[in-house]
Amino acid sequence: MANKPILLDYWPSMFGMRARVALREKGVDFEYREEDFSNKSALLLQSNPVHKKIPVLVHNGKPVCESLNVVQYVDEAWPDKNPFFPSDPYGRSQARFWADFVDKKFTEAQVKIWMKKGEEQEAGKKEFIEALKILESELGDKPYFGGDSFGYVDISLITFYSWFQAYEKFGNISIEAESPKLVAWGKRCMEKESVSKSLPESEKIVGYVAEFRKNNLGSE
Amino acid sequence: MANKPILLDYWPSMFGMRARVALREKGVDFEYREEDFSNKSALLLQSNPVHKKIPVLVHNGKPVCESLNVVQYVDEAWPDKNPFFPSDPYGRSQARFWADFVDKKFTEAQVKIWMKKGEEQEAGKKEFIEALKILESELGDKPYFGGDSFGYVDISLITFYSWFQAYEKFGNISIEAESPKLVAWGKRCMEKESVSKSLPESEKIVGYVAEFRKNNLGSE
Repeated sequence: MANKPILLDYWPSMFGMRARVALREKGVDFEYREEDFSNKSALLLQSNPVHKKIPVLVHNGKPVCESLNVVQYVDEAWPDKNPFFPSDPYGRSQARFWADFVDKKFTEAQVKIWMKKGEEQEAGKKEFIEALKILESELGDKPYFGGDSFGYVDISLITFYSWFQAYEKFGNISIEAESPKLVAWGKRCMEKESVSKSLPESEKIVGYVAEFRKNNLGSE
Repeated sequence: MANKPILLDYWPSMFGMRARVALREKGVDFEYREEDFSNKSALLLQSNPVHKKIPVLVHNGKPVCESLNVVQYVDEAWPDKNPFFPSDPYGRSQARFWADFVDKKFTEAQVKIWMKKGEEQEAGKKEFIEALKILESELGDKPYFGGDSFGYVDISLITFYSWFQAYEKFGNISIEAESPKLVAWGKRCMEKESVSKSLPESEKIVGYVAEFRKNNLGSE
């Protein structure tokens, strides 16, 4: 099929996973192409010359880059099923605010847990727990961030759930002790096939991080 | 008027200016409130407890935070006039991509020109010129980033135009030599009242930066 979308992705990437979840939520049949970072494909370099990063969704021959942008594009290009946003402008602005929070605060904090050691890692743990608690409080007793239905903020955050075990192991923390509602929300989201099919097993991520730390930090 | 939107802002902020331009493009009558950063208002702290930053747009008693989010909210809350986005999903994704580029690459580079000295400033100049050239190439021969009409990317970037003189003076560069089309675009945007009324005079920004550098770096 000429118009079958192509997703340029990398399996452990939380950003790539967002695109997978979004496409599966919409029931879109797509071609998954794994990128090799040491030898990026011509299609990736030509589709995302500015950032040269995955995920890129190529649809009708045209590339859409940056994960949250891909998720919004998927929502708008396949509008008939499972809308990711509420319809009112204020609700939409709140969803964008929280996905942006995930990108800015949560993403920056988690990276320090698995990529760093010592003081930098400790600072990352503190920021990570702060971010968890803010998200826990925003979720409150709702089933999903947007309320009763799985949406944009859920997609932006759930992909990190596959990394939780790695954060716990390498950061020596208990995410469930810090934010039990968030863990319950993660389990709830994992009941959705769009999510469970898109996230790698936690053990694989733990192995990926162990390998990264051995190669880059000289120890696990 | 109970429903007159309130904008919490700070005059030299390029982010605050985005909200001003967006509201004026839509012809929205709003109350401008200048924030004092050494003594933030109760309304700011209560409206944006996560980031505690301007701009915040309070509309119908509810706060919208983060500048690009405010611009998108304004577009959706006042949909009848001057749409900021094209109607097709791909065009919308491209606009979001470039506004995000402005936030990530351009913003980070420019800050090093005026807040830093020495090597850090030199690195910032290099990144700034690279970002200028990428934006110049994306603009090409179009009157505006979105094509024939002033839109989301234009709003996200034009507010930095009031800082161009400061970048030139303190970074010792000529923006017009590096990116003549971008400077022509800036002049074109300034012909719009929504823009010219929202941006402070370049000389005031130069004075603001001189003061900042004197107080924080010990020299201009």
